[in-house]
Amino acid sequence: MKKPFANHETLMSIADVYPTPFHLYDEAGIRNTARAVNAAFAWNGGFKEYFAVKANPNPEIIAILKEEGCGVDCSSLTELMIAETLGFRGEEIMFSSNATPADDFIYAKALGAIINLDDFSHIDFLDRHAGIPETICCRYNPGSFGIQNSIMSNPADAKYGFTKEQLREGFLKLREMGARTFGLHSFLASNTLTPDYYPALARTLLETAAWLKAETGIHVAFINLSGGVGIAYRPDERPNDIARIGALVRGVYDEVPASAGLSNPALFTEMGRFMLGPHGCLVAAALHSKDTYKRYIGLDACAADLMRPAVYGAYHHITVSGKENMPADRIYDVTGSLCENNDKFAVDRALPEIEKGDLIVIHDTGAHGYAMGYNYNGKLRSAELLLRADGSVKLIRRAERPEDYFATLTETRFGKQLNEVAKNVRDMLAKSKNTLR
Amino acid sequence: MKKPFANHETLMSIADVYPTPFHLYDEAGIRNTARAVNAAFAWNGGFKEYFAVKANPNPEIIAILKEEGCGVDCSSLTELMIAETLGFRGEEIMFSSNATPADDFIYAKALGAIINLDDFSHIDFLDRHAGIPETICCRYNPGSFGIQNSIMSNPADAKYGFTKEQLREGFLKLREMGARTFGLHSFLASNTLTPDYYPALARTLLETAAWLKAETGIHVAFINLSGGVGIAYRPDERPNDIARIGALVRGVYDEVPASAGLSNPALFTEMGRFMLGPHGCLVAAALHSKDTYKRYIGLDACAADLMRPAVYGAYHHITVSGKENMPADRIYDVTGSLCENNDKFAVDRALPEIEKGDLIVIHDTGAHGYAMGYNYNGKLRSAELLLRADGSVKLIRRAERPEDYFATLTETRFGKQLNEVAKNVRDMLAKSKNTLR
Repeated sequence: MKKPFANHETLMSIADVYPTPFHLYDEAGIRNTARAVNAAFAWNGGFKEYFAVKANPNPEIIAILKEEGCGVDCSSLTELMIAETLGFRGEEIMFSSNATPADDFIYAKALGAIINLDDFSHIDFLDRHAGIPETICCRYNPGSFGIQNSIMSNPADAKYGFTKEQLREGFLKLREMGARTFGLHSFLASNTLTPDYYPALARTLLETAAWLKAETGIHVAFINLSGGVGIAYRPDERPNDIARIGALVRGVYDEVPASAGLSNPALFTEMGRFMLGPHGCLVAAALHSKDTYKRYIGLDACAADLMRPAVYGAYHHITVSGKENMPADRIYDVTGSLCENNDKFAVDRALPEIEKGDLIVIHDTGAHGYAMGYNYNGKLRSAELLLRADGSVKLIRRAERPEDYFATLTETRFGKQLNEVAKNVRDMLAKSKNTLR
Repeated sequence: MKKPFANHETLMSIADVYPTPFHLYDEAGIRNTARAVNAAFAWNGGFKEYFAVKANPNPEIIAILKEEGCGVDCSSLTELMIAETLGFRGEEIMFSSNATPADDFIYAKALGAIINLDDFSHIDFLDRHAGIPETICCRYNPGSFGIQNSIMSNPADAKYGFTKEQLREGFLKLREMGARTFGLHSFLASNTLTPDYYPALARTLLETAAWLKAETGIHVAFINLSGGVGIAYRPDERPNDIARIGALVRGVYDEVPASAGLSNPALFTEMGRFMLGPHGCLVAAALHSKDTYKRYIGLDACAADLMRPAVYGAYHHITVSGKENMPADRIYDVTGSLCENNDKFAVDRALPEIEKGDLIVIHDTGAHGYAMGYNYNGKLRSAELLLRADGSVKLIRRAERPEDYFATLTETRFGKQLNEVAKNVRDMLAKSKNTLR
């Protein structure tokens, strides 16, 4: 049975101080997972998990992972800025991007980040705009791969990476242009729930490294398995056992490099979902109960706070705080307030009876939750809170305000008045609450 | 053949001043469509199009529609703030929402907007928080409807609206609570390309109004057909003929109300896509050309600027500026730079040969384009420009800056440094451009 990481008493006391909805993160859980990952791959001397910032770009969260020894995988200018602010330096940063703008390469190079090139043509582009660094990584797309899932069905249809022949040419060209330390990266499946994905990918990359060594004489110094290790969103799914995955990768590692004359390539990972997914939840209040052709519970959260159910039909487990042990004998659609019929956090979900004011916990929003938020319908994105290991709670991102939503309009003829109206409405609502409630 | 509303010379001169990517809107086209809509329904004395702000919340765009006599359909606090700022008053505003927060009702009531209740239970909720206004509208969900599409497949599965019996009870209850003027609203299909949708919906609503009159004695003063009139995204689709739709609705209107003793209900619409969709495009530059298992063109725009292709697989027509008449003899995937494999504006699209630096025009982004933008991967949303009827160009929303992206973090311990880093990076990139290019 999936239970929230914060019990009813804790959630009630938090909601007393911070208005719903908010994303809540669990420091203890984050640290435990980071330690489990580092332990699972400790057999590899050069191992480093580069946390995929895109999954959760909150600096306070990333600071925790930094303390646990993680690096960062960045994909854009602003993610690199977060990395610099947090004090990540040089090869603690991987920069993985595609269709990359010149500015991003320039900044990544200036930071000394390990640049992971997506395409053969990016070699000249990088050289022209920023120069070729001594350490470089290339992203491999083998065209086919044994393990598939719906998000990355067939590598040959994916926009990412070099072909094998392009890797050979690319390595030779990069060496000629001054590169000295080479890495190999690949991402071939997303949110896998099998222990076999990383080992199979490690085999592919190690064998490719062996082939490159034979073809070019270039030694691959690190193998980057990227992300793709999934989490159990559904209660009937079995979570990945990272220790087992680490041991299986070790088996492959002990077999391939030795036979191919590779000397101890470092292993990198770029997990986002696995590191953070279960350690966040979206806490919302039940605002409305509706009974028409179906029964609906309307929340004060919406797809602006968590988009995955609305746009991908993704399952997120839901519990009603304080009713975790009550029978789930009602069937509800749990909806957000967007004028989009697909703004439903759950459809036909068995839940205990929900009363207005109940705190609804939407699980597993730690990765690709807040990060994918938007402002459709003019909705404002929620706050983020950290439940610290010592039990205290810290606001690590305030909720958006109308002024944020209007920020890109401030230089237009309506900018000043929009902010005045926003201020007046805030005052009016504060007064109205005093009068009516 | 679909051609952009701005020719190559115009686009080149705009791109000289404003860096790509940007959304560009066509004032002349917007005015023409608004006039065609008003002409198509001029036979109805009370007709009003309430532009669905969620489709395009740019105040400068909505100001144009206001000049053409349109009202606004708002769904949230910030959309109501835009309406107030632009000077819309009272019944020029419809407020249609679901799972509605109390604050939104309070503000809508204070503005004198026509509140469109989504659910029977909202009557008491509205009364408690804001009071029942004299003019009120109820949203109807008939449970089944002849015309379906993939977005709203079956009304009984949609979260919106009252059942018929709830309408009867709701009208009686609202009258008792002081409501005097009643409206009826329904939204049953999205982006339809048939002239039959509005007439069929008008029939449903008029017949329901007649039934309510007979059951309760309450006269329905206005019928709100909401949105749902689509546009031809694909070049082989036939655009809706709004004059024909207006005439067909008139046929229904001339038939039903007379026989039912309804006296001239006003007709309202809440179109967004039809009003704006074709009058916007996303202009991006081709940054990269990639050749692996397929051929890719990488743009400087991404799903942060236009999400529909990535998350809904939606078709948006693409032309290459200046190459509109060249043979489309290449097959490309046109990609954005998100680390999401589905960030592709087009898959296997026949296009003329694209060279780096070509301006790529992604059509029909005027509605649900910028409005659905997000900041995934830390990407910043683009600027919006208006091509005015006199040929001049006006910046109507600046592009996001890193400081905007960090705004909700300013009160955390990293806020100050994030903004300092952002400033330093901007300076560094400006210098780097001077040196390298």
